[in-house]
Amino acid sequence: MVEKKVSVFRKEHFNAAHRLNNPMLSAEKNKVVFGKCNNDNYHGHNYELIVKVTGVVDAVTGYVIDLKMLSDIIKTEVIERFDHKNLNLDVSDFKALNPTAENIAIVIYNILRAKIDTKYELKIVLYETERNYVEYPA
Amino acid sequence: MVEKKVSVFRKEHFNAAHRLNNPMLSAEKNKVVFGKCNNDNYHGHNYELIVKVTGVVDAVTGYVIDLKMLSDIIKTEVIERFDHKNLNLDVSDFKALNPTAENIAIVIYNILRAKIDTKYELKIVLYETERNYVEYPA
Amino acid sequence: MVEKKVSVFRKEHFNAAHRLNNPMLSAEKNKVVFGKCNNDNYHGHNYELIVKVTGVVDAVTGYVIDLKMLSDIIKTEVIERFDHKNLNLDVSDFKALNPTAENIAIVIYNILRAKIDTKYELKIVLYETERNYVEYPA
Amino acid sequence: MVEKKVSVFRKEHFNAAHRLNNPMLSAEKNKVVFGKCNNDNYHGHNYELIVKVTGVVDAVTGYVIDLKMLSDIIKTEVIERFDHKNLNLDVSDFKALNPTAENIAIVIYNILRAKIDTKYELKIVLYETERNYVEYPA
Amino acid sequence: MVEKKVSVFRKEHFNAAHRLNNPMLSAEKNKVVFGKCNNDNYHGHNYELIVKVTGVVDAVTGYVIDLKMLSDIIKTEVIERFDHKNLNLDVSDFKALNPTAENIAIVIYNILRAKIDTKYELKIVLYETERNYVEYPA
Amino acid sequence: MVEKKVSVFRKEHFNAAHRLNNPMLSAEKNKVVFGKCNNDNYHGHNYELIVKVTGVVDAVTGYVIDLKMLSDIIKTEVIERFDHKNLNLDVSDFKALNPTAENIAIVIYNILRAKIDTKYELKIVLYETERNYVEYPA
Repeated sequence: MVEKKVSVFRKEHFNAAHRLNNPMLSAEKNKVVFGKCNNDNYHGHNYELIVKVTGVVDAVTGYVIDLKMLSDIIKTEVIERFDHKNLNLDVSDFKALNPTAENIAIVIYNILRAKIDTKYELKIVLYETERNYVEYPA
Repeated sequence: MVEKKVSVFRKEHFNAAHRLNNPMLSAEKNKVVFGKCNNDNYHGHNYELIVKVTGVVDAVTGYVIDLKMLSDIIKTEVIERFDHKNLNLDVSDFKALNPTAENIAIVIYNILRAKIDTKYELKIVLYETERNYVEYPA
Repeated sequence: MVEKKVSVFRKEHFNAAHRLNNPMLSAEKNKVVFGKCNNDNYHGHNYELIVKVTGVVDAVTGYVIDLKMLSDIIKTEVIERFDHKNLNLDVSDFKALNPTAENIAIVIYNILRAKIDTKYELKIVLYETERNYVEYPA
Repeated sequence: MVEKKVSVFRKEHFNAAHRLNNPMLSAEKNKVVFGKCNNDNYHGHNYELIVKVTGVVDAVTGYVIDLKMLSDIIKTEVIERFDHKNLNLDVSDFKALNPTAENIAIVIYNILRAKIDTKYELKIVLYETERNYVEYPA
Repeated sequence: MVEKKVSVFRKEHFNAAHRLNNPMLSAEKNKVVFGKCNNDNYHGHNYELIVKVTGVVDAVTGYVIDLKMLSDIIKTEVIERFDHKNLNLDVSDFKALNPTAENIAIVIYNILRAKIDTKYELKIVLYETERNYVEYPA
Repeated sequence: MVEKKVSVFRKEHFNAAHRLNNPMLSAEKNKVVFGKCNNDNYHGHNYELIVKVTGVVDAVTGYVIDLKMLSDIIKTEVIERFDHKNLNLDVSDFKALNPTAENIAIVIYNILRAKIDTKYELKIVLYETERNYVEYPA
C-alpha cells in the first residue's frame, strides 16, 4: 500500500525593521538598485510566515506533525529572534546578507530544516506585504 | 500541439463540531497527545474547503470544468453531509477515524474523486483555522 | 482644552462548539426556529472577537490602554474559558442562555466590563462566520 | 554548488466587465452553458492577478527579480489594457476568445511570457471572485 | 430595565457591470469627472454588501433578527436583481441615476427599508473594491 | 427635504519602522512600559490606513467626494512622507511625539483635516497589525 502524503501548513507572523543595502556597492548604486527600500534609517513590515511540512499521516494520531509542536519550534527558532527586531542590526544571519524577502525565506528554511526531522519535506512562504511574497524552495 | 492544462479552484465552507480522540489510547494519553482538541464535549471550526481541479481547457466553453457544476457536487456530496454537524457523531466516515484536518481532507478527496471524471486531477485544501491548514495529495 | 478620545481595537479568536436551543420550546419548535443550528450533537465555529476600548490618550505613554494588557485580560477572562469548549455544556454563562452570537457578545461584554476601568467605553464585535457578525452595545 | 531557486509573487488587480458567450453556439445553448454569466449586457469582477516568477537569487541584489520592475511590466502590459474595460469589446485578445477565467489567465501568461526573460519560470493565478480562481500553467 | 440593543450584520455579494456617466453633462465633461470609470463599454466589480440591523434581542430566540431570514430578503430583493447584471442597463433603479457606490448603497437601503420592520434600524455598507467603500446612512 | 449623508472610505497603506520610547522616562522604565516595542534599533509594520469622509451626495456626480482626488491627497500628504521611512527619525511630526498607533492616527487626522473641506466630517482608522488598530476621533 502506498502511504498517503499530506502537507500541513502553519502560519505565524513577526514585525521587523529592515533596509536593503549591499555594502559592496556605492551609496548611489544602492539607491538606484533598492530605491526607497534603501532608506538609511530603515523601514519595516508585518511579515506573515507560512511553514509547509509534508509527510505521511501517522496512523495513531491522524497527524502529519503536531502543529502545536511545529508552532512552538517556529516561535522558539524564528519568531523570538526576528520579532520586533531590526533584521540588519539585531539578527546575526543578516550581518553579511541583504535581508530581501528571498534571503529571509532561505535563512528561515535553513534554521527550521535543522530542527525538523528529515523525513519531512519543508517549504517556506514569506509575505513581506499582502502584494509581495516569496516561496522557498521553488 | 500540446494541450493547455489549467487548474481551477472552488472555495466552499462548512461549520462543524469535532474532537480529536483515538479510542485505542487511554484517556490520559489522548489528553497528552491532543491537548485541548481532546475536550470531551467537542469544540468546532469554520472549515474553508478549496477544491482544485486540473485539466484541459474545453475549446467550446473555455472551461476546464463548469465551476457551478463543481460547486453543486461539493455541496451535495460534502457540505450537506458535514455542515452544522458533529463530525465524530453525525458523519459516518469518522465513526472509526480521528477527524484531524489531515483525515478530513483525505475523506473529502475520496468522496469527490468518486464523483469527478478521472480525466481531471484533484487536490483538496482544507483550512481548519486561518493559521492551520492542510493539502492532499501533497 | 478638550481631551482627544481615541478608540483602540484588539482582535482575538476562539474555536468552540455550540447549538441553538431553547428548552422552553418543544423539539419541533426548536427545529423550526433554529434550523440546522439546532443540530442535537452541536456544530462549531472559529469565533473572531474584537474588543473596542475608547478613552483619552495618555500623555506619558501615548496609549489609550496598553493593548498587551488588554490582550492578557481578554485571554484570561474570555479565551481560556471559551476556547476549545462546548459553549452549551462547558461554559457556565450559557447553562440557561442560548449561545446565539448576540448572547455570546453580551456575555463577553459583561465579563470584560467588570475588568476594565469604567473611565473607558467598551464595545464588543463578534464574528461567528465571515458573513455573520454582531456588535454590542449597538 | 546547486543554485537556490526561489519563487516570488506580485499581486495586482483590475476591474472589468465581461460576458461568457460562444458565437458558434445558439443563443439558447449559450444561455444553458453559461447561465447568468451569459447576461447580454455584461456583468463584471474585481480580478486579483498574482504573477509568480521562479529563478535563482542574484548574489548582488538578493532578488530573484526586482518586484518593482515586475509590477511595472504587469501594469504596462496587462493592467492598462484590462482595467476598467469591457474584456469582450475593448480588449483585442478576446475578440474571438471567450473571456473565461481560464482563457484570461492564458492570455495574461502569453503577454507576460513575451516580456519576461526566459531564464525565469512563469505562472499566473487569477481570482475572478474570492471563491473562483484559476492557475496557469497547471 | 433598559432593553439591550445589539447590531447584527449579514454579508452578501454580487458581481455587476456599470459605468459612471451623467447624461446631463457632455461626453468630454463626463470623461473629465469620471475618468476611466466612464468607459463607454462598462467595467465591473465584485460588490460586497453588508446589511446592519439594530434592535432588541428577542428573549425567546436570542436573536435580534433571524439572519437566515435577513439573508433571504437580501437575496430576493437585491442579489437576484443586481447579480450578474449591468446596473445601468438592466436595473431599473439606475435608469436615471448614476450607479456610484453612494447611489447604489442608497438604492439598496431604500429597497430593504421597505421590507424590514421599522422597529429595526438599518444601515448599508457597500464595498466596490477592497479599497473603496461606502456606508449609508452616515 | 433632508440631505442624504453618506460616508465614503478609502484604504491606503505604508510600510515604516518605529520604536516606542518616551525620552522623559528612564531606559529601564521605557523597557517596562513598552516592552519589545522599545527595541533600540526599531522594528516595523505594514500600516493600513482607512480615511473616512462623510458628507452629502453631490447631485451632479453622485459622489460625496471624488475618491481618486481623496486618494491623491492621502498619497501626497501622508504616504509620501511616511512610506518606507523611520517614523521616529525621518518624520518631523514624531520628533517629540511617541509614534504609537494612537498618535500616528491623530497626526494623520490633523494633516488631512487641513487639506479637506470643512463641510466634510473626517475620521481615521489605522491598522498597525491585523489584530491591533485604532480610530480617531472616537
